[in-house]
Amino acid sequence: MKAHVHVMLKDGVLDPQGEAVRHALGGLGFDGVQGVRQGKVIELDLADGTSEDTVRDMCEKLLANTVIESYRIEMA
Amino acid sequence: MKAHVHVMLKDGVLDPQGEAVRHALGGLGFDGVQGVRQGKVIELDLADGTSEDTVRDMCEKLLANTVIESYRIEMA
Repeated sequence: MKAHVHVMLKDGVLDPQGEAVRHALGGLGFDGVQGVRQGKVIELDLADGTSEDTVRDMCEKLLANTVIESYRIEMA
Repeated sequence: MKAHVHVMLKDGVLDPQGEAVRHALGGLGFDGVQGVRQGKVIELDLADGTSEDTVRDMCEKLLANTVIESYRIEMA
């Protein structure tokens, strides 16, 4: 079975990577870009029967820095 | 308006970052993890009326390395 974890910086946390992308897009002539936020998507290939709680435990312990990041789990 | 771009490594391309995460999860005692693939999700805050073709152009020129990465666009 698969699970997808979407990890994004929390609102209010400065995103220098997103700013760099926005600036670069502007330099390429894309002028309608008002903001860019960049995060991670982690695709997990798990043994059948793995629970969402286990995936949440993985997020809390490793996959997300919960001080500055929030995460969303999609079980598939 | 917003657009989300999901960028993942193409199948068959080695994902050292994903391997490192899988190894670390195993070290934390999560033994049911058979594979990990890590990619990017880019949230774009765009001027109203920006077309999906423009976002695809951004992907082709900057947001994705189309030699080793594939991307998926969600207009919101």
